[in-house]
Amino acid sequence: MRLLRMGRPGEERPCVEDRDGVVRDVSAWVPDWTGAALDPDFLRELGPTDGLPVVDPRTTRVGPPVRPGGHLVSIGLNYRSHAADAGMALPDEPIVASKAPSTMVGPYDDLVIPPGGDKTDWEVELAVVIGRKAKYLPDSTRAAEHIAGFCTANDVSERGWLLERGGQWLKGKSFESFTPLGPYLVTPDEAGDSGSLALTCRVNGRLMQQASTADMVFDVHHLIWYLSQFMVLNPGDVVLTGSPGGVALGRPDEPYLRPGDLVEAEVGGLGAQAQRCRAARVVEAIG
Amino acid sequence: MRLLRMGRPGEERPCVEDRDGVVRDVSAWVPDWTGAALDPDFLRELGPTDGLPVVDPRTTRVGPPVRPGGHLVSIGLNYRSHAADAGMALPDEPIVASKAPSTMVGPYDDLVIPPGGDKTDWEVELAVVIGRKAKYLPDSTRAAEHIAGFCTANDVSERGWLLERGGQWLKGKSFESFTPLGPYLVTPDEAGDSGSLALTCRVNGRLMQQASTADMVFDVHHLIWYLSQFMVLNPGDVVLTGSPGGVALGRPDEPYLRPGDLVEAEVGGLGAQAQRCRAARVVEAIG
Repeated sequence: MRLLRMGRPGEERPCVEDRDGVVRDVSAWVPDWTGAALDPDFLRELGPTDGLPVVDPRTTRVGPPVRPGGHLVSIGLNYRSHAADAGMALPDEPIVASKAPSTMVGPYDDLVIPPGGDKTDWEVELAVVIGRKAKYLPDSTRAAEHIAGFCTANDVSERGWLLERGGQWLKGKSFESFTPLGPYLVTPDEAGDSGSLALTCRVNGRLMQQASTADMVFDVHHLIWYLSQFMVLNPGDVVLTGSPGGVALGRPDEPYLRPGDLVEAEVGGLGAQAQRCRAARVVEAIG
Repeated sequence: MRLLRMGRPGEERPCVEDRDGVVRDVSAWVPDWTGAALDPDFLRELGPTDGLPVVDPRTTRVGPPVRPGGHLVSIGLNYRSHAADAGMALPDEPIVASKAPSTMVGPYDDLVIPPGGDKTDWEVELAVVIGRKAKYLPDSTRAAEHIAGFCTANDVSERGWLLERGGQWLKGKSFESFTPLGPYLVTPDEAGDSGSLALTCRVNGRLMQQASTADMVFDVHHLIWYLSQFMVLNPGDVVLTGSPGGVALGRPDEPYLRPGDLVEAEVGGLGAQAQRCRAARVVEAIG
């Protein structure tokens, strides 16, 4: 099943895309894609959407497929190729950072280059959406029961604030618009094996990242188990599972993003994103 | 004004304590202490609560005074005395970490010692609750307009997971129950000068932390300005502004918390907390 949220920022309505590609508003069934509506058992039981109101994706904005406000966790250095780019050793256990929840936007929204942000970088990633509370899981074999589904994500990072502003990655990952998510939340039955999904990221048409989730250091189920050892995961929390090599940081010319650039990211059959970069509008934004 | 949320976990209702110490349920006015209900202008206009239903704090649990789910930001090494304890240099700019939002609990709830968590430490802190969206503030003089109020907080940290598990402090700060908040959210007019509040923390009656917010490296308004330069702050976000010296980490005997210990924290006139420590119940918690 493919879940979406359609509408202007803050006014998105929960939708489902059916097998024929028709998007329908399911707000008669659930208030939003959040909380109990993300439970895997609940999602499995959802019936056909025939007869519900049709939404036209050509005229309606696509929002992030889960309601923002959950914990937004970002795994670092989880691909062998990215660790090599960054010149860092492979981690012994997952490296875990987080992003401000206010970073989450739709897959086609503008990517805002921060004031003075001359090292804004792309990171295509497989995102996992939690569907059921997870706490002290005994082992990774139980992790799948806690997953609502998977999304394409861009874990945008500003390398200057990430690496040069006094420890902790949060700063470089928390600017507005830095987590485009979606278009779809794809349930596990339809997403297929999370360990063999293709990832690509193009900037202005040039292929920058191309990899498979098979190159992960720690797989999805290990990550969910690991996180549950030191935090309670709740429905609507999102885990960004790390990015493969090919980001701007490791390239000789460090081609960081500039206003006007087009970023296109895609993971497996989870749907493609496209963000146009623009400069932050600082004056309008005060208050 | 003193705001509270009263009721069982997840079922708290918004309340106000009046000048006579009577707590009344204001859910006829606001759905919860979240979003627009935290706007400083809105809070200033609230009328007397006479006639609204009385809630008995002797028989009703006190929850955290804002609805959990906002971004939970934790400032590191922001007191000269704590940096000395930790053997670390004073930062040139604020050090910013975050905590899982699922850590937030009421001020008298149990403090859960994690499985294998033999370095669980207390940190009394002044918490700032955001009341109005803040983004790229021009300078710190505008910060006050974005503050709903202040709370007592305990920014509990497990030093083993914080310092010995592969970078990023998030792990050591994200266990269940690690952010007791409240009892009150006190509006700025009543809280007084955020730069001269007394902080104390006692463990089993022994005074462990005693300081003033005057010892902060970066004051509250500077912190809000600084954070707004790289993240959008929204109503209900909570900023923990750092802890003074006196935590277990810097003591020769490192007296980390054990089941049965009693932690009592208080900031200025914002109200006192008391947490009894207990071991995590791992088996009951699965699923």
